[in-house]
Amino acid sequence: MSRMSAIDTAALPGDTEFDRGTAVTGDPGEPGRYHADLDGGWRIGGGINGGLLLATAARALSHELGAGSGHSDPYSISGYYLSAARPGPATLRTEVVRRGRTVSNGQVSLTQAAQDGTVTERLRALATYGDLDRLTQDVRTSAAPPEMPPPDRCVGADQAPPEFLAQADLLHRLDLRLDPACVGWALGAPSGNGTIRGWLRLADGRRPDPLALLLAVDALPPVTFDLGMLGWTPTLELTVHVRAKPAPGWLLVSHSTRNVAGGYLEEDAEVWDSAGRLVAQSRQLAAVPRP
Amino acid sequence: MSRMSAIDTAALPGDTEFDRGTAVTGDPGEPGRYHADLDGGWRIGGGINGGLLLATAARALSHELGAGSGHSDPYSISGYYLSAARPGPATLRTEVVRRGRTVSNGQVSLTQAAQDGTVTERLRALATYGDLDRLTQDVRTSAAPPEMPPPDRCVGADQAPPEFLAQADLLHRLDLRLDPACVGWALGAPSGNGTIRGWLRLADGRRPDPLALLLAVDALPPVTFDLGMLGWTPTLELTVHVRAKPAPGWLLVSHSTRNVAGGYLEEDAEVWDSAGRLVAQSRQLAAVPRP
Repeated sequence: MSRMSAIDTAALPGDTEFDRGTAVTGDPGEPGRYHADLDGGWRIGGGINGGLLLATAARALSHELGAGSGHSDPYSISGYYLSAARPGPATLRTEVVRRGRTVSNGQVSLTQAAQDGTVTERLRALATYGDLDRLTQDVRTSAAPPEMPPPDRCVGADQAPPEFLAQADLLHRLDLRLDPACVGWALGAPSGNGTIRGWLRLADGRRPDPLALLLAVDALPPVTFDLGMLGWTPTLELTVHVRAKPAPGWLLVSHSTRNVAGGYLEEDAEVWDSAGRLVAQSRQLAAVPRP
Repeated sequence: MSRMSAIDTAALPGDTEFDRGTAVTGDPGEPGRYHADLDGGWRIGGGINGGLLLATAARALSHELGAGSGHSDPYSISGYYLSAARPGPATLRTEVVRRGRTVSNGQVSLTQAAQDGTVTERLRALATYGDLDRLTQDVRTSAAPPEMPPPDRCVGADQAPPEFLAQADLLHRLDLRLDPACVGWALGAPSGNGTIRGWLRLADGRRPDPLALLLAVDALPPVTFDLGMLGWTPTLELTVHVRAKPAPGWLLVSHSTRNVAGGYLEEDAEVWDSAGRLVAQSRQLAAVPRP
């Protein structure tokens, strides 16, 4: 991958592709309202990636809930996807639902206006925010990270089938190395296990943080690929629990499904940081690809 | 259990404890507004059970989204718990967020007013609704239900420690039989596995349906009991996916956690119906009991 040389800079959050892609600007005319400009470089399939969209909405809530109380980290956020977001301007309206001592709650709605002025809602989300630095250090996690070869022995996403890469602009922004055991689908031989896992970092070396975890849980190819269903799986709902600030370095992301039925599936993701901590868990309800 | 004789009637939804407990009445003066009267018989710990509360909110959305489009079944619903609900009157305000062809989206807020008129929000939820009868019959579920002794060889919830029963009024409304392998905590010897499972049905024989599944995912003792933490685990967020209408009869409910850390835990639930189908999956973020 051509961007490897940039990785060592380990860019801090700030002027990076992810930070520009999720940037929001407060509207001086209306408290709680923000503006964003969605970048086509984060497209996948028919629209802007759902994780990137959720991270953008979460950034607006982080500003609103962080002010005063310091509750600027998402503990839990549930995004309901209403229509595919397109590259271009978007408006976010936030509402502080409850300010608490240890956690606060917020709601955010992301809309886009068409040329004719018609406004369409893309995403609505509810969330609980807090301060991850204030959590206790008591970690009794019983889950263990999956066994996986090191990144340099995994399969770069740039080796995916051209027809997949063509509809996945966001892969150029990511350094994604898939476990060889989960890439049979690219060769026409899916494992049938319903799992996809890989190492993930941002291509420009930007360090992971809680907002980047919201992208990480939705950045791998859909788990349905491993079941031989190579189509688009639109997300209806995605809930992410961010459980700790990730250590710098590679993230290990593992996706699985147990219940493909009736035209829908759940997709669970676990994200482990370089220190071996389970930093995020997510589940989404998605539609099975149409044959 | 004294209610056993009533089970055989297999009461249909209608005039049952669950239906009365989750009843909502439309407000003729304001479209989208409903009233409920929360029954103290559904209390657990400090407030009304979170699953019952979510089912009440879901019933209001079922009326709103079902009218016209027939989208009266929750496919996915995410409840954010803002304060403990008390027995007594409650007001629900619904909003139709989007009406679609196959699914629609709604939002609902449940509030209660104090004697002095102060209104406090208890729960806010976002949801995707559809018509479960319209789903395809293609079931490729890879998950298998847990092995468990039959109900008559499990442990009735009425054998729980008196101090637990005293704060769990709702157990009188349920016929809950816990797997003996998961009840060591009641004898001071928790397994440490972080799993609780049991057979569940409504004590008055009321058949399960999609709304009752929202109660089922939050009706067992908290999974933390199996880790030796015998306190109250307040739910911050609970998302439920209802994947099929359950067959009549016992539900098999299995709870587990993999990530108890930093003062919080995720609790996953799977609900299997008597036909062996995985009809609901849920995950909640809850706070670890304080020592």
